[in-house]
Amino acid sequence: MAQKPTIPKGTRDFSPVETMRRQYIFDTIKRVFRLYGFAPLETPSMENLSTLMGKYGEEGDKLLFKILNSGDYAAGLTDGEVRTASKICEKGLRYDLTVPFARYVVQHQGELAFPFKRYQMQPVWRADRPQKGRYREFYQCDVDVIGTRSLLCEAELVEIVERVFRALGIRVVLKMNNRKILYGIAEVIGHADKMTDITVAIDKLDKIGLENVQAELRERGLEQEAIDRLQPILELAGTNEEKLNALRTILASSETGLEGVEELAKVFEFTAAAGVGLPLELDLSLARGLNYYTGAIFEVKALDFAIGSISGGGRYDDLTGIFGLPNLSGVGISFGADRIYDVLLGLGLFPEELNCSTRVFLANLGEAEQAASLRLLRALRDAEIPAELYPEPAKMKKQMEYANRRGIPYVVIVGSQELEEEAATVKNMRTGEQRRVPFADLATALL
Amino acid sequence: MAQKPTIPKGTRDFSPVETMRRQYIFDTIKRVFRLYGFAPLETPSMENLSTLMGKYGEEGDKLLFKILNSGDYAAGLTDGEVRTASKICEKGLRYDLTVPFARYVVQHQGELAFPFKRYQMQPVWRADRPQKGRYREFYQCDVDVIGTRSLLCEAELVEIVERVFRALGIRVVLKMNNRKILYGIAEVIGHADKMTDITVAIDKLDKIGLENVQAELRERGLEQEAIDRLQPILELAGTNEEKLNALRTILASSETGLEGVEELAKVFEFTAAAGVGLPLELDLSLARGLNYYTGAIFEVKALDFAIGSISGGGRYDDLTGIFGLPNLSGVGISFGADRIYDVLLGLGLFPEELNCSTRVFLANLGEAEQAASLRLLRALRDAEIPAELYPEPAKMKKQMEYANRRGIPYVVIVGSQELEEEAATVKNMRTGEQRRVPFADLATALL
Repeated sequence: MAQKPTIPKGTRDFSPVETMRRQYIFDTIKRVFRLYGFAPLETPSMENLSTLMGKYGEEGDKLLFKILNSGDYAAGLTDGEVRTASKICEKGLRYDLTVPFARYVVQHQGELAFPFKRYQMQPVWRADRPQKGRYREFYQCDVDVIGTRSLLCEAELVEIVERVFRALGIRVVLKMNNRKILYGIAEVIGHADKMTDITVAIDKLDKIGLENVQAELRERGLEQEAIDRLQPILELAGTNEEKLNALRTILASSETGLEGVEELAKVFEFTAAAGVGLPLELDLSLARGLNYYTGAIFEVKALDFAIGSISGGGRYDDLTGIFGLPNLSGVGISFGADRIYDVLLGLGLFPEELNCSTRVFLANLGEAEQAASLRLLRALRDAEIPAELYPEPAKMKKQMEYANRRGIPYVVIVGSQELEEEAATVKNMRTGEQRRVPFADLATALL
Repeated sequence: MAQKPTIPKGTRDFSPVETMRRQYIFDTIKRVFRLYGFAPLETPSMENLSTLMGKYGEEGDKLLFKILNSGDYAAGLTDGEVRTASKICEKGLRYDLTVPFARYVVQHQGELAFPFKRYQMQPVWRADRPQKGRYREFYQCDVDVIGTRSLLCEAELVEIVERVFRALGIRVVLKMNNRKILYGIAEVIGHADKMTDITVAIDKLDKIGLENVQAELRERGLEQEAIDRLQPILELAGTNEEKLNALRTILASSETGLEGVEELAKVFEFTAAAGVGLPLELDLSLARGLNYYTGAIFEVKALDFAIGSISGGGRYDDLTGIFGLPNLSGVGISFGADRIYDVLLGLGLFPEELNCSTRVFLANLGEAEQAASLRLLRALRDAEIPAELYPEPAKMKKQMEYANRRGIPYVVIVGSQELEEEAATVKNMRTGEQRRVPFADLATALL
């Protein structure tokens, strides 16, 4: 066992500083979720495979981490059966927080007060090929309200986005669209049946440009006339209101499309009424892949840092239908903690105090000094100041090195002279400044 | 899929109220850990099986949850190989937080400042047979310092125990012993080789009584003379100081035993110097099963609620040796969140405010009222008061029922008259009392 141990690829250890920074993100998001009346929910890491399979498409099924049945897992099975994981595994690790949420709502429907507002912040696991920025274990931070069609909920999610990123200091734009508008567009160009093809192609507008999108649409079976009718829609510009007005004309013949337009208009009205200052942008190229969305869709982009979307979500009309409880409409949004971390790090926005878990370090100069230090230490902690004493009388250089490596901002020295004067030497490690503080005033001085 | 979905046996969903209560426990423990300069660490849920296997004994190996390799897991393997999990699984779920901690310290030894003080609060998984109070997924809350033999660390853990349970309002006793004393006892009765047998038997003193312990010792191969010599030791009574003094005589011929006595005496001296008020009890029958302990051992019991130990730990001299880094001494303690939960619930000690995530509920009486409510809502949230508005204008009865089921303490009503007077009706749901509060004062009144 002389070889250094490792961890599975695609997984991560989080060092103290990384963990503190992550906790800061989680705590900030949680605090905002709580302000809006969302209550926390936690579900098990393992779900029955019957709950997970078939919910994420064929590709998703392959990305589930399956857990080997415990005990004599292959007992009584033929070799063939052992080779099909279906018989030797009955449980899998959570792939997202949405399916467990739907499962929970159906299982506990009798105990819940609807609309049910919940948030959930837990890790999920995907057997994806690991690469930069893509991990096999990562956290999701989801907030959803289920059991109401009220568009106030969409507006509330916009407010939550505003408040979270304001608290974190990240400037963002929230892009919105509505699946009904996308359906309406497909309908008015005569291809209601090709809505998915059209949205998949439109989704790439930003990346590959109009010409390539048009080429892709041709490949996907759209005739030139339909493509020509789509072009002015894709090129719609102006304020949200101007876009909505243009869409009212363009989608005049699509009942569903007009519904989508009025839904968006209402959400903009509510957010304006609530005084939301966040930049909101109606973006017709926003499609979002997940096919359970049926109404509003959202995506949040950082304005000052190049990275994909850092938050996204939408309304779904039948999430719990897969578990036998139809017609329960909900809307939710998910915050991408890993990308938010990268943005905060890249822009230098993590608060300074997250660099160290300890505020005050007491050097240890020997037995007699130690007894006094123990009492000072207790007073500091009673004042809620994170403090520690070096556990043994070691060379001063070694102790200062330790305090430095830990990034501790204040060092307190109690030597024989300090003992006599009943006053400690306090050194500010940032400025190098030193001063004497009477023992009795130490906690107050370091608050 | 009409059948109600379920979760794997031995796992749990945590409802909003349960999750809030659990978070309260975790937050309280975390706050204390931080006060003592411990920094958070997080490790992946999955570890390589090579990291986990052989660390928990033969029985432990069987209780590991193994994860099926992803992709074509059985490709190129013979049927026999597929039937031995070793070839189809390379990863397992974390069984405890101690082995991943040791693995982390060895893997990152170059980056760490020693002594390394870390806490870790994450779930662990065991394929144990589920039963009352025993789950297959549960949290551990561990705090350890590694890289120093200083007994100040033991004293600090005692302080942490005191502060955590004082914050939670649970009266406890902390029982302490030292593995070196147990070795010394085995040595002086002439059976240094039988230390494990003796401690296993002694450990049952509380449960089965002296006579049965003696019978078990005979079965385990101790002759009557040795048993007779053991009896007065087991019956030692008096204060900790009296016990220590008696042990100094009894263990006079055992160098290791005396070392254990002086270690304990030092810990008591440090805790007295720091002003610890927690009842500390030297308990010679305390053995603790885990065989990596080599010095102090601790166990915490609730005084007012019958349940096993709610916290425990000890010093280990060679935890990282299994990964090739010998001679790194450490000491740690683990808090049992599930049992602490049961104690708090049983004694009615959870704070009232954990029963509800929302403090203020605004009834929704229609479109015009809604606009005013949205502004009030924003003001409440700006004042950090968790608040929500019913998302649609529904019957008052339905809305009040919702507020009641959610346990929300304050209901705010804004109807046409309130709109006119620019003052809301505020109802205290506990007392039933109602009053009018000007819109502008609402947040202040409800703080």
